Amino acid sequence: MPDDKPNSLRARLYRQLDPQARKRGLSLTNVALAVFIVFASVVAILATEPTLYDQNARLFIVAEWVFGGVFIVEYLARLWVAPERPDEPRSWRARLRFMLSFSGLIDLLTIIATLTPGAPAGPLLRAFRLLRVLRLAKLGRMSSAWKHIGEAISSRRPELFLSLFFGVGLMVISATLLYLVEGDAQPDKFGSIPRALWWAVATLTTIGYGDIYPVTPLGKLLASVTAVTSIGLIALPTGILAAAFSDAMARHRERVAAGEED
Amino acid sequence: MPDDKPNSLRARLYRQLDPQARKRGLSLTNVALAVFIVFASVVAILATEPTLYDQNARLFIVAEWVFGGVFIVEYLARLWVAPERPDEPRSWRARLRFMLSFSGLIDLLTIIATLTPGAPAGPLLRAFRLLRVLRLAKLGRMSSAWKHIGEAISSRRPELFLSLFFGVGLMVISATLLYLVEGDAQPDKFGSIPRALWWAVATLTTIGYGDIYPVTPLGKLLASVTAVTSIGLIALPTGILAAAFSDAMARHRERVAAGEED
Amino acid sequence: MPDDKPNSLRARLYRQLDPQARKRGLSLTNVALAVFIVFASVVAILATEPTLYDQNARLFIVAEWVFGGVFIVEYLARLWVAPERPDEPRSWRARLRFMLSFSGLIDLLTIIATLTPGAPAGPLLRAFRLLRVLRLAKLGRMSSAWKHIGEAISSRRPELFLSLFFGVGLMVISATLLYLVEGDAQPDKFGSIPRALWWAVATLTTIGYGDIYPVTPLGKLLASVTAVTSIGLIALPTGILAAAFSDAMARHRERVAAGEED
Amino acid sequence: MPDDKPNSLRARLYRQLDPQARKRGLSLTNVALAVFIVFASVVAILATEPTLYDQNARLFIVAEWVFGGVFIVEYLARLWVAPERPDEPRSWRARLRFMLSFSGLIDLLTIIATLTPGAPAGPLLRAFRLLRVLRLAKLGRMSSAWKHIGEAISSRRPELFLSLFFGVGLMVISATLLYLVEGDAQPDKFGSIPRALWWAVATLTTIGYGDIYPVTPLGKLLASVTAVTSIGLIALPTGILAAAFSDAMARHRERVAAGEED
Repeated sequence: MPDDKPNSLRARLYRQLDPQARKRGLSLTNVALAVFIVFASVVAILATEPTLYDQNARLFIVAEWVFGGVFIVEYLARLWVAPERPDEPRSWRARLRFMLSFSGLIDLLTIIATLTPGAPAGPLLRAFRLLRVLRLAKLGRMSSAWKHIGEAISSRRPELFLSLFFGVGLMVISATLLYLVEGDAQPDKFGSIPRALWWAVATLTTIGYGDIYPVTPLGKLLASVTAVTSIGLIALPTGILAAAFSDAMARHRERVAAGEED
Repeated sequence: MPDDKPNSLRARLYRQLDPQARKRGLSLTNVALAVFIVFASVVAILATEPTLYDQNARLFIVAEWVFGGVFIVEYLARLWVAPERPDEPRSWRARLRFMLSFSGLIDLLTIIATLTPGAPAGPLLRAFRLLRVLRLAKLGRMSSAWKHIGEAISSRRPELFLSLFFGVGLMVISATLLYLVEGDAQPDKFGSIPRALWWAVATLTTIGYGDIYPVTPLGKLLASVTAVTSIGLIALPTGILAAAFSDAMARHRERVAAGEED
Repeated sequence: MPDDKPNSLRARLYRQLDPQARKRGLSLTNVALAVFIVFASVVAILATEPTLYDQNARLFIVAEWVFGGVFIVEYLARLWVAPERPDEPRSWRARLRFMLSFSGLIDLLTIIATLTPGAPAGPLLRAFRLLRVLRLAKLGRMSSAWKHIGEAISSRRPELFLSLFFGVGLMVISATLLYLVEGDAQPDKFGSIPRALWWAVATLTTIGYGDIYPVTPLGKLLASVTAVTSIGLIALPTGILAAAFSDAMARHRERVAAGEED
Repeated sequence: MPDDKPNSLRARLYRQLDPQARKRGLSLTNVALAVFIVFASVVAILATEPTLYDQNARLFIVAEWVFGGVFIVEYLARLWVAPERPDEPRSWRARLRFMLSFSGLIDLLTIIATLTPGAPAGPLLRAFRLLRVLRLAKLGRMSSAWKHIGEAISSRRPELFLSLFFGVGLMVISATLLYLVEGDAQPDKFGSIPRALWWAVATLTTIGYGDIYPVTPLGKLLASVTAVTSIGLIALPTGILAAAFSDAMARHRERVAAGEED
């Protein structure tokens, strides 16, 4: 049976916990939770550093138990207030729906990853404990700007996908050419297309680690042409996204003018 | 004589093979073909890696024969259904046109490159076999987003060309200055303009391999100015493309509003 | 008591000193001041270079006293003309307001940092003297383009913040994966997530120092995927900002058309 | 006295030489000249490479004499047809105007630089001969897209200038912080602000040569923050330029709609 009284403890807690219960901004509870999640994620990241962990093992273990406790309380609270959501009046279905929702599953996974034993026993357990870093994903529910960005991107999916295809094609072509030209001069670096691809990725994304680069004049000439096209490779998706965001804003303003939106 | 029955085997196969027969999306056959082409391209790339090829030579040779078989079947099927295209009713002309079309020639070249003998005999044969990587180009016919991107780019060709000219000019000027300033300190790296150009390309595209950089204070100062202008060099074509895509969308919406397009 | 005569010395000095007293452009005094501030900042930067300071210590000390003198004269002049501002007629309140304003405090801090003794005695004093570099901030009052840029950026704050969140999330995910894959091969470079994060930052911002990069095939594959997504990471905020600036201009033109602005 | 006959040799030559005499595209003569200029520039660049010059000195010297001859003939031809320009009927004034115009001076400088003796005698002569590379600038007159790009950029000059100021300010702040933090660990690399600035330039422009980077944890943390802001530094001018180009196109379309332009 849903609780109708708007000022009951559960209703007030709901308004504190669900960001969608507010028109804009975050409740104090959610701001505190967001800070806590960031803190817990940073601790989980630092715990993998041996020079830190070995000296403060006890501290890290205690911290994980504290994080686990807080996340369990948060999970139970969200479970309890789930029936306050206006779209689902029946208590048990609202709670089940929360448990099976994306953020509900993330919450549960976070708790399990937090409560696995402290000492890394095997590679599987170690990988599982790394899921602790995933607690950062709990922040996802805090923002509604996802929707705007997601819409703008998905409206131009064919063009963005084609940019990716262009990019990968350019990488394969550059790698093939450099493999032909530099393969004999540097067999350990350009001796096969997969090896040359590592160079092509670093070059066309303009990262340029410097562990691999052509040394022959013809190789440098081809690499220069590749390098210059890399600018176009970056300009293409950027231009497409810029136009998509521009378009989304223009449509928004038109709808505001037509009184369909505020 | 064209086949008029819309549900004949040839008509149905045509609708499966030609992406233009559908308003949007790809047929199941084309999705399967696209996956197969990507797989065959990856195998062709991996086959150039000696550590992989030497241990699995037999597997790679068998794979190429399978790819050759599939591509021949695909080619014959496309040849057979060619007369179904609405724009060319005469069978033999439709088939000749397919054979001479860009994608038809790519298909043929792919088959020939696939069926050259497995062992790399000479540099020419080796280069020819590299055309196997070209099978990736067979994916080109799958998308119609080409057209939108191509139009947006070609509408701003003079500006984009001028950006390129600016960029190359900037590279030449930077290289000349660094050659003058650093030539004596690092003769093997900045001892001529072509050598300094290799530095200018890596710097102005922001790749920065790190194999060559100025060491004198004046060289570093000039390189810093060059580095800062590199941001403008990237911003210019990006801005031009962003505006071109924006403009293409605005015109599209205008035509929709005027009822000329949907 | 404010000075009403528009051609009094104080009124004329005010028009020379306050950039807001003019519709556009800078007065001769402000141009001279801007050049002087840039010069003083460059001297403060060069003074930290031992090879320069040790040979010219006396020159640098004299220069700082000259800078201090000029900045004190400028400060007193600004204090004197403060009551000329149209929004505050009472002399002492106008002067107090200037002293407590952001640029007034920067001016004061600049003077104090300039006049601390020349020899670097302790780390605190050394850090304090570094505030001399801050004199560059005195240039801030010279431009009113701040407002346009600030508005465009702040109008899209949620989207930009989310881009940052995406970026940081991507860095954490990439670092975690590379830590798992490369941790055993290069324990000193990928032996913990914080160490792997240093790689992720250099890769996703496309800087690529080259001090740390994967060496295993799986590590290189994952790094390549990370590298390609880095293009999206740069395209996203650029696209958002481009649209924001576009939108700001469109709104400006609309208001001009409606006669609300010029 | 101007030549009125539109089909006189001089009038026809004028239409071949002056790109502004045609609505769009380049005359055959100008296309040939452009190719020749590019070729002559490439030769001038290659001539600085000792391994090429020493073996082919005679060839390079002959080439320069040929270039000089062609450029002299071109210069005299342009001088002769100058009075055909519709805006200046008097022969001698039209010719003087051409000689003093920007492209006329570039032409003259190019000829002088070409005809200096072949052997590099002193540093001044060497520097002067490098002006040969400047012949690339002769291409400038070929395109009229300059105007569109120049207008779009100059309309947003205050914002672009402020971006530059932000960028330089950010570089100075990052360099100062890294100097404080890394100065003791790597005195030869971060031992002064000018040295740290070299790092800041390479980082904020995302070049990342890799000759200098922080090694302490705090230094890496600060460098990571710097690296992330570098994305904003690139996004800002790109966004401003994209909006400027967008705006220029929108205004162009409005004027076309109003019948003021075609």
